[in-house]
Amino acid sequence: MSSIKVFAPATVANVVCGFDVLGFALHNPGDEVIMRKTNTPGVIIKSIVGDNGRLPLDPERNTVGVSVLNFLKHIESNTGVEIELTKNMPLGSGLGSSSASTVAGVFAVNELFGNPLKREELLPFAMEGERLACGSAHADNVAPSLLGGFVLVRSYAPLDVVKLPTPKDFYCSIVHPHIEVQTKDARQILPKQIFLKDAVTQWGNVAGLVAGLYQSDFDLIGRSLKDVIVEPVRSILIPGFMQVKEAAMQAGAIGGGISGSGPSIFALSKGKDTAEKVTAAMKSVFDKINIGSDSYISEVNAEGPKVIG
Amino acid sequence: MSSIKVFAPATVANVVCGFDVLGFALHNPGDEVIMRKTNTPGVIIKSIVGDNGRLPLDPERNTVGVSVLNFLKHIESNTGVEIELTKNMPLGSGLGSSSASTVAGVFAVNELFGNPLKREELLPFAMEGERLACGSAHADNVAPSLLGGFVLVRSYAPLDVVKLPTPKDFYCSIVHPHIEVQTKDARQILPKQIFLKDAVTQWGNVAGLVAGLYQSDFDLIGRSLKDVIVEPVRSILIPGFMQVKEAAMQAGAIGGGISGSGPSIFALSKGKDTAEKVTAAMKSVFDKINIGSDSYISEVNAEGPKVIG
Repeated sequence: MSSIKVFAPATVANVVCGFDVLGFALHNPGDEVIMRKTNTPGVIIKSIVGDNGRLPLDPERNTVGVSVLNFLKHIESNTGVEIELTKNMPLGSGLGSSSASTVAGVFAVNELFGNPLKREELLPFAMEGERLACGSAHADNVAPSLLGGFVLVRSYAPLDVVKLPTPKDFYCSIVHPHIEVQTKDARQILPKQIFLKDAVTQWGNVAGLVAGLYQSDFDLIGRSLKDVIVEPVRSILIPGFMQVKEAAMQAGAIGGGISGSGPSIFALSKGKDTAEKVTAAMKSVFDKINIGSDSYISEVNAEGPKVIG
Repeated sequence: MSSIKVFAPATVANVVCGFDVLGFALHNPGDEVIMRKTNTPGVIIKSIVGDNGRLPLDPERNTVGVSVLNFLKHIESNTGVEIELTKNMPLGSGLGSSSASTVAGVFAVNELFGNPLKREELLPFAMEGERLACGSAHADNVAPSLLGGFVLVRSYAPLDVVKLPTPKDFYCSIVHPHIEVQTKDARQILPKQIFLKDAVTQWGNVAGLVAGLYQSDFDLIGRSLKDVIVEPVRSILIPGFMQVKEAAMQAGAIGGGISGSGPSIFALSKGKDTAEKVTAAMKSVFDKINIGSDSYISEVNAEGPKVIG
């Protein structure tokens, strides 16, 4: 094989109660990478489509470039690759945009070189891309993008990532309002300290969510999708957040909240029909307050990245 | 049926990382209730064995009495019961002593009156007993004692209790040192506020523990049995705690910590042989520092209370 085309999914990190430890993958949106072997060492980023010129082509400064370079170094390759990246989601949307690209890159290069590493062994390479993108090697987007489904990042030192089950017929609505929330701001607004009693409420909900996923118990999942710590603070940065969430619930969603650090808002539903109603209801709230938005509907993606050409 | 004998299990609340939300039941120790129908309304506590005279016979002031009285009132019974209670564990040991008695009582009275309530419907009655015993209607001992196995108390308002799976061949060692730790003191020593980053570590571990129980993954359970919030503070009240825990781990335990609010220390192991070695190792630490102790070995009790006569 001398060339390959790979899709990797957008992701919803945090999942309401699971701040910094939970995430899940979508089928739509997602980024695409076309990768070709070259006879010279190193990485050439030939083109990036869909980033409005915001991402650097210099591989040392590009999250995909850095991750693929580290991979090639690790396998001691004396040849290289060239990359065409197509971004199908806005940057800074809270959908794990950089993670989707990075995962597409490391998944593609591993396939292209005959899968020398197991899929979970690619995670540290993708995390290096996150370090470049966000300043720290977070895994709550790259892990679900790479492994698919719901993923728990239990610990970083040592890295301990657990793939959780994905209930059947589980759909996600995403609405991305055209406003900017910097991940850095969304992080700085968080309190350093919280009440122990709130933390207990939160870890009860995290436990309930995990149990609900194992039991495919949508009611339990819904009851557990409560966030008493992060959402009350971060939602201030998203105009209309409470109304959008309320509209989603009224339309039949199981639960929802801020995707990653926002501004995208997600809602989970049982079945595609409900998810479509929920998406429309969410979007109409932003329409009413004159904030433009994109929306996506996707079943939760249990597989992760895939070869598409 | 005019009389019945019931056993209800001791319990380990908190389970290291699951402060105030998790607990599990044991086969040994546990309390026993003999209950007989009487022709007059109300509850007579005829005798209590094993409490060194510390528990009141007045049913209005006794946790079993109050719970059973509330049950009889609820079913609008115009007859009553008399109770003989046998306590097989020390009071204030951190093993859910009052809960075991209360659960034995409500389970017995429900059986005796032909099971008018489902088992989970008995929980609020048992919780009223806890309110009398501890000042607040906690469920993290009564819920696992009543339902058996590992139990998550996700929320109190509304009450939401989730029975989690119990891996096979899962054994618990308990060592109860002869020192006193008041639940009130153990609670007052806790900080009101904690660092968000510690809370994130903790709920990652809670999620990992729940996933480990569903997957019967003893390694994951072990990696998740870490407490960065409560144990570092409460363990100060138990002389030798760190050495006892270390001895348990050296002897092959998967993990362990303070049982409830102490002073009992528990450790979980795969298989009875390992659990026996672990128990001996834990006890020997208390022997060396001249603190008397009792010990118990029990498979995790997946069933809960049972009729034994």
